[in-house]
Amino acid sequence: MGSIRRTGGRAARVALRSAPLADNVRPVRAGLSGGQYKPLSDADVLCIHGAALDALEQIGLSQAPPSGIEIMTRAGAVLGDDGRLRFPRALVEDMLALAARNITLHGRDPKHDLLLSGTRVHFGTAGAAVHVVDLETNTYRESTAQDLHDAARITHALDNVHFFQRAMVARDITDNLELDLNTIYASVAGTTKHIGTSFSDPSHVAPCMDMIHRLAGDEATYRARPFISNSNCFVVPPMKFAEESCIAMEHCIRAGMPVLLLSAGQAGATAPAPIALAIVQAVAECLAGVVYVNALAPGHPAVFGTWPFVSDLRTGAMSGGSSEQALLTAGCAQMHRFYDLPGGAAAGISDSKLPDMQAGWETGITNVMAGLSGLNMVYEAAGMHASLLGFCLESLVLGDDVLGQVLRAVRGIDVTADSTSIEAMKSVCLDGPGHYLGSDQTLKLMQTEYIYPTLGNRMSPKEWGEADRPMLLDKAIARKNDILAKANHQIDPALDAAIRADYNIYFN
Amino acid sequence: MGSIRRTGGRAARVALRSAPLADNVRPVRAGLSGGQYKPLSDADVLCIHGAALDALEQIGLSQAPPSGIEIMTRAGAVLGDDGRLRFPRALVEDMLALAARNITLHGRDPKHDLLLSGTRVHFGTAGAAVHVVDLETNTYRESTAQDLHDAARITHALDNVHFFQRAMVARDITDNLELDLNTIYASVAGTTKHIGTSFSDPSHVAPCMDMIHRLAGDEATYRARPFISNSNCFVVPPMKFAEESCIAMEHCIRAGMPVLLLSAGQAGATAPAPIALAIVQAVAECLAGVVYVNALAPGHPAVFGTWPFVSDLRTGAMSGGSSEQALLTAGCAQMHRFYDLPGGAAAGISDSKLPDMQAGWETGITNVMAGLSGLNMVYEAAGMHASLLGFCLESLVLGDDVLGQVLRAVRGIDVTADSTSIEAMKSVCLDGPGHYLGSDQTLKLMQTEYIYPTLGNRMSPKEWGEADRPMLLDKAIARKNDILAKANHQIDPALDAAIRADYNIYFN
Repeated sequence: MGSIRRTGGRAARVALRSAPLADNVRPVRAGLSGGQYKPLSDADVLCIHGAALDALEQIGLSQAPPSGIEIMTRAGAVLGDDGRLRFPRALVEDMLALAARNITLHGRDPKHDLLLSGTRVHFGTAGAAVHVVDLETNTYRESTAQDLHDAARITHALDNVHFFQRAMVARDITDNLELDLNTIYASVAGTTKHIGTSFSDPSHVAPCMDMIHRLAGDEATYRARPFISNSNCFVVPPMKFAEESCIAMEHCIRAGMPVLLLSAGQAGATAPAPIALAIVQAVAECLAGVVYVNALAPGHPAVFGTWPFVSDLRTGAMSGGSSEQALLTAGCAQMHRFYDLPGGAAAGISDSKLPDMQAGWETGITNVMAGLSGLNMVYEAAGMHASLLGFCLESLVLGDDVLGQVLRAVRGIDVTADSTSIEAMKSVCLDGPGHYLGSDQTLKLMQTEYIYPTLGNRMSPKEWGEADRPMLLDKAIARKNDILAKANHQIDPALDAAIRADYNIYFN
Repeated sequence: MGSIRRTGGRAARVALRSAPLADNVRPVRAGLSGGQYKPLSDADVLCIHGAALDALEQIGLSQAPPSGIEIMTRAGAVLGDDGRLRFPRALVEDMLALAARNITLHGRDPKHDLLLSGTRVHFGTAGAAVHVVDLETNTYRESTAQDLHDAARITHALDNVHFFQRAMVARDITDNLELDLNTIYASVAGTTKHIGTSFSDPSHVAPCMDMIHRLAGDEATYRARPFISNSNCFVVPPMKFAEESCIAMEHCIRAGMPVLLLSAGQAGATAPAPIALAIVQAVAECLAGVVYVNALAPGHPAVFGTWPFVSDLRTGAMSGGSSEQALLTAGCAQMHRFYDLPGGAAAGISDSKLPDMQAGWETGITNVMAGLSGLNMVYEAAGMHASLLGFCLESLVLGDDVLGQVLRAVRGIDVTADSTSIEAMKSVCLDGPGHYLGSDQTLKLMQTEYIYPTLGNRMSPKEWGEADRPMLLDKAIARKNDILAKANHQIDPALDAAIRADYNIYFN
């Protein structure tokens, strides 16, 4: 039960394993298939689906903008005297049949394309944190455009963070249009992975699209491979449309931009306290979004964004790191599969203010349950603290290790004739050395089946003492600084200069 | 998406929720049913089962003691010229039919009884750490009998740690019999939960049973409700019996003591590197144990203890916190269910030397995968660091929070007509306040459906700053000290005095 060591060849093996692996033989990668974990039975899924349809038919949603009312009533939605838009079952079913499936969220670099299909899992950032955690002083300060850009640059360097959605609000920018433009540019200049942004003011869509077309080269190039999607908080739960966001969403759709249909209720506050009923409400709201999108533009790429959050019911405050949150997210992932729609939800959030042990178990438990449930897009998967109020760049770096472990779990157990053949046991037990160290099979699997942490420490207490007891957070700070020191700007210098000439850019 | 707060009644709700709940309405408890997570398909399970039977028939196990050879050959095992004992399929199947199912591991207090049945999940300590982590100085020191007793006393106070198996070696005791006696007494004097101990010297069984009978009152009382089980490392993987441990196991069985059939190979070292084949070997070894136990005493209570560990293949050192470990454990849990046997395996171990973020994600991910897989006995679930070499009392305390979250995940999503009725949504959306705060349904679920951390911090950054930025580990140290200051000795004073008069007891 203790550790078994060999000194011969160890340094060589460590060096070998530390060299970068080709993507096709890496033990983990974006888009591994989950689904081994099912918190809901088939009957449970049908029950939730039925209740969501009932809610759409009987309760409906209020406060659709006039344009939305026109789009949805033309398709078959019914506007009541109470101003609520109600959705007959047949309408929902018809629109579900039209909805885009197996969509690709493009990276600027095609190697970062995300295929949202089946139970394929991808992890990334998201959120609207207003603080950054400063680990040197253990304090919170307001987040800036530079922080957002740094988070994008760090994400670019991390294998297990597959997309970069805006995670912080740049609070050094007071003008809202400048904020939206800088959010886009800080992200795109930092990484060629898929970008998620979030604007909700309809008047900002055109100027933001102008910048995006410049970054793409031209409009046609962007439309061919839209590398930025917009997160649309198109509802204000419970069961109300968000007028401005809906209009912005209409503009995005017409501009060829994939949308995240985001329903972010909070169980016990803006969503029902029972986990099952919170899922019902989120599903109902996103189904209304499916009707909206497909009535406007059949088959337009949209992510079914059931993001129910959880309240600590004692205080009403959000708790993103709880198992109730993990269950909500995993249950939603099963509903996405039921509809066979590309889906997303939140996991990985910590309620802790710092990257401490609490942050570890919260981000670990919620991310692994999301991954094993086969969620296509796991948002907020790294860096998020204080129940979404704070972002920590070092936690983002550490999140790469967490997500590596999670992806290894998602990859699962390889059961084949080869991996269960007892010939390897025979040669060791009957004729061989009585152990598997250094056997051909062991060496062959060393790089392709096992994943090793970058910052996680596996030294023995003796080695650790001899190495002067390295501390995890010191290592995280050092890696963050190293990544930022080496990061390349991801925009051509001439274009960057032109952008900086034409816009007020708040970061270096 | 930010937090939603109400000040009215908040203090009252926090106070209400902080009062202890009756066991039957607590959101989590021992023995919740998992199984929602299945890393293996049905075909995978059959494949592993078939390979294990092949291994038993073709490879068999070497080095059985003469008594074991007699017991097992009488039942139908075949001793080869090479000294290996081989097991025909029919023998394994016959013994599986005789094996004890739905066993109870008793607590001294019946409220701590553990029913090992179906996918019921229980978490507890285990291991043979030789160090204690001293959090005041961030150093490792040798573990003592007092540390073991303190761990037992802390476990007694923690709702979500359901049994206490010996987690540390008392290194202040040089005499091996005194070590075994003190291990038992330190545990029993600390908690009335089920105790796991581990002696492997056959000559120690009688004197240990003498002490145990005194603690029980008499032998008949112990045999009626055996509150101590023995962890028998009856094999030395790969595919070898451990002679001394086997003889000790025979004595334990005759003494009416439940046994843990522990196969602790290490994938890539003493077990094959492919996860599936490591499971095959562990299953084969434990099936040999099932033959052994049931040939000696049909239906004797035994836990199917497939505990394959994992090597970091670069170094050969153990990695208990890896996802490869979590997959091994979860895969084993599925094999336990296939045989419908009470089963146990390891999860919750951290490779980190300290209770830091790495420790959090490692213990969180491995424990939640074990729990969701429906593992009956999750050993090493709290307190274990440095890949089993160090135990940390503060991590044990923090583990109670981790396991609370894990148990909440195991409990799952309650989908009933009531929990999915849209009436609650109607009353809020159509007639009501437009939110669910303070609704009857919300308040009713506050205590029974949601679990709250004891040490985990859910304050906003503002509250946290105003509270002088409390640090998790400071809180853990304080709670540990508080528990130890208040802990009652769990042995009647007269008996304690008599035991201390007759034995050399190393702790207070």
